[in-house]
Amino acid sequence: MARVLTPRAEDFPRWYQDLIAKAKLADNGPVRGTMVIRPAGYAIWERMQAEMDTRIKAAGAENAYFPLFIPENYLKREAEHVEGFSPELAVVTHGGGKQLAEPVVVRPTSETVIGEFMAKWVDSYRDLPLLLNQWANVVRWELRPRIFLRTSEFLWQEGHTAHATREDARAYARRILHEAYEDLMVNVLGIPVLVGLKTSRERFAGAIATYTCEGMTGDGKALQLGTSHELGQNFAKAFDITYSSAEGGREHAWTTSWGTSTRMLGGLIMCHGDDNGLRVPPRLAPVQAYVMVVKEGEGVGEAATKLRDALRDAGVRVALDDRTDTPFGRRAVDAELRGYPVRVEVGPRDLAAGNAVVVRRVDGTKAQTPVADVVGAVLAALDSDQQALHDEALAFRESHTTAVNTLAEAIEAAATGWARVPWSAVGAEGEAEANGQGVTVRCLLRADGSVPDTEDEPDLVAILARSY
Amino acid sequence: MARVLTPRAEDFPRWYQDLIAKAKLADNGPVRGTMVIRPAGYAIWERMQAEMDTRIKAAGAENAYFPLFIPENYLKREAEHVEGFSPELAVVTHGGGKQLAEPVVVRPTSETVIGEFMAKWVDSYRDLPLLLNQWANVVRWELRPRIFLRTSEFLWQEGHTAHATREDARAYARRILHEAYEDLMVNVLGIPVLVGLKTSRERFAGAIATYTCEGMTGDGKALQLGTSHELGQNFAKAFDITYSSAEGGREHAWTTSWGTSTRMLGGLIMCHGDDNGLRVPPRLAPVQAYVMVVKEGEGVGEAATKLRDALRDAGVRVALDDRTDTPFGRRAVDAELRGYPVRVEVGPRDLAAGNAVVVRRVDGTKAQTPVADVVGAVLAALDSDQQALHDEALAFRESHTTAVNTLAEAIEAAATGWARVPWSAVGAEGEAEANGQGVTVRCLLRADGSVPDTEDEPDLVAILARSY
Repeated sequence: MARVLTPRAEDFPRWYQDLIAKAKLADNGPVRGTMVIRPAGYAIWERMQAEMDTRIKAAGAENAYFPLFIPENYLKREAEHVEGFSPELAVVTHGGGKQLAEPVVVRPTSETVIGEFMAKWVDSYRDLPLLLNQWANVVRWELRPRIFLRTSEFLWQEGHTAHATREDARAYARRILHEAYEDLMVNVLGIPVLVGLKTSRERFAGAIATYTCEGMTGDGKALQLGTSHELGQNFAKAFDITYSSAEGGREHAWTTSWGTSTRMLGGLIMCHGDDNGLRVPPRLAPVQAYVMVVKEGEGVGEAATKLRDALRDAGVRVALDDRTDTPFGRRAVDAELRGYPVRVEVGPRDLAAGNAVVVRRVDGTKAQTPVADVVGAVLAALDSDQQALHDEALAFRESHTTAVNTLAEAIEAAATGWARVPWSAVGAEGEAEANGQGVTVRCLLRADGSVPDTEDEPDLVAILARSY
Repeated sequence: MARVLTPRAEDFPRWYQDLIAKAKLADNGPVRGTMVIRPAGYAIWERMQAEMDTRIKAAGAENAYFPLFIPENYLKREAEHVEGFSPELAVVTHGGGKQLAEPVVVRPTSETVIGEFMAKWVDSYRDLPLLLNQWANVVRWELRPRIFLRTSEFLWQEGHTAHATREDARAYARRILHEAYEDLMVNVLGIPVLVGLKTSRERFAGAIATYTCEGMTGDGKALQLGTSHELGQNFAKAFDITYSSAEGGREHAWTTSWGTSTRMLGGLIMCHGDDNGLRVPPRLAPVQAYVMVVKEGEGVGEAATKLRDALRDAGVRVALDDRTDTPFGRRAVDAELRGYPVRVEVGPRDLAAGNAVVVRRVDGTKAQTPVADVVGAVLAALDSDQQALHDEALAFRESHTTAVNTLAEAIEAAATGWARVPWSAVGAEGEAEANGQGVTVRCLLRADGSVPDTEDEPDLVAILARSY
């Protein structure tokens, strides 16, 4: 096959850009840092949304929608928050043909405006927990944009909840972390994320604890794919979110927030892509089976249509490609780029022998398959290849993670992969030193792999890496 | 029942505001003209989205996402378009802590930016038709906002398509109009919309034809609930969307655009609401059956839970309200406000006789129903009440529409309802005169009710009304 993409080993960021352009997933927008998500990319995002939305609703949160525009003064009420976001704000100064009395900012995230309304809606302990989520666009001005990973505008879900106690808030932030985020990433996206606690240096602006899901990219870097924050009473105090307790007192609520975004599309590409294009895990794929008419011939179109219908009846998300006015080779290259998990190629020669060819994207294997067995073969491939992609990514992560004992070794190991190092060998000072060399502490874990409550627990492990 | 809302007959706009606040559908946002859509309102919007999205995809369009920010110069390329939208634009002048070299506008609609990308993606006649849709927020600065009907930011879907011929573009604009918009509004929202052609005065800025779906509100006004536009070659010429034809020439494409928005939520309220609150048609309702524990007692909670489960198993969207620490009367008032199509009330006294009470929101009828018959009774009510709401709205529309022969009569009739008048008795001059008195031409129809191609056809009927 002719070279379609820059090989990953040659220039990984260039490969990534090539893939996005050639698979027609997205384009750069006309305003610097913005993106256009094309139908092939957006269809994957819609599947991510549907799977995530189901999990968020199962955790009891309800969807709502808050305004794009936030009064500038809202952001200033929580000191760390304004400091964290000020450099990234887009500011609207004119509306309806006039200069505005007070400029408004385009939301970089909605903690502040949602805090304002939580204060109105929460009165009694009976109103808690208040569990909200919204699907929205947000804007953070980016000086070094990269499609899907860092764009000035991106799409995301942001959850915001208020609770009566710190314990309840913590439990909910962790429930979303594991039951929604980790579950989706591992079991649908097939990305074996590490789930841990961010250091205080890496925490969200205004949080008392930030939990994260970190995925490894094909060049051994780290990518933060979702975070869940305990906000303590910081926003409740800034926005006066209080409730009367069962005992009759007036208390500040404890809030959380949590988000995942179109960045997951970038993570998917960087985790599962190969030199021929994207590989989409079957459970996620908007098109799981791609039935192709190789070229016209006796009964070919009819056989392909029947297979399409049979696959659809078997519950497979399927598309038919009968564009025989475009050369088969070019269409096959496009199908590889798009990463459809299974191709079913129907051509006159094979069909004369009663066969179609079933091609598995995960490893490129092609199997002559009796037409009557195609549905079974596709179902088996979809089932096995979900696991195969996950396991391949896990093996890659393990082979690119080095256990070391000192900061210097960790920084060295981070040149090509992840380093596992005792947090006691790093600490806040070591973290600053690593940052100076382009390496960050991605998360902290307990020795048994579970998520710590604070960075002060003994015997924690730090994961150090370069990151996107 | 105590008066909860301002009666509709007393002050319709006040009733509308009351209902939105008391049913907790939405709040005003902190920036003037913006809104917060609360979970009860957003759940209805999600159902509208799902039903619309299915219809749009069935018509062959694919979802994509284009940027929120548009370079100011894009809007200026199509003369009528910039003139139409300039007074409503929100302008971002600062980003990332600096003044921008060129201000960017927040999209009021995306014809321009999508036109720019269509030009890149379309090369040959084989690339046509190009059928795109996006779900997005847009901003049009509003001086006299009203929640859901006119807000500075609103949520919508906007479809944008490019075609090889004028005929194909027209056919597609009309296909969406009828198969997506009219079908959704009539058969799911239960709103008997009139579907017709806008006059040239009322056309979308830049269109050569605008088709509309017009609903009647409970105070006899008109509400535009969705529009579909033929844009001719105006945007194709402004953005250079050209294709090489099968014959080898280079031709400008013909484009369309079409949109429906959160305004449909306002239409739903204004069409189906009564003095007790909203009435949501069963096919649309996020909660179709609301099972209420009246008060605690022997086996009550268990019976209610079993009914909830049985209804869910029968495919009904159902919720259980067992908050017996809140008085039943208050919960019943809230359920009326929210407009759940059917309530199932389970209390100790009725249950002792083997019964529950099935209450139909459409007309308030209450029926003692043996517990074993509740699922059947609910299914029957959901089925009949979808039609009942539609038919009630249709009867209201017909009784509030007056056929007249002169402009003066039409303007008079529009004080309390819609006027049907020969378009030849109005014309462009009469239209301007009506506008001066707060009355607009909502649409033009053929005598047989079908949609005309142009306003110059003979024997057209004009619908004149006041509007929101």
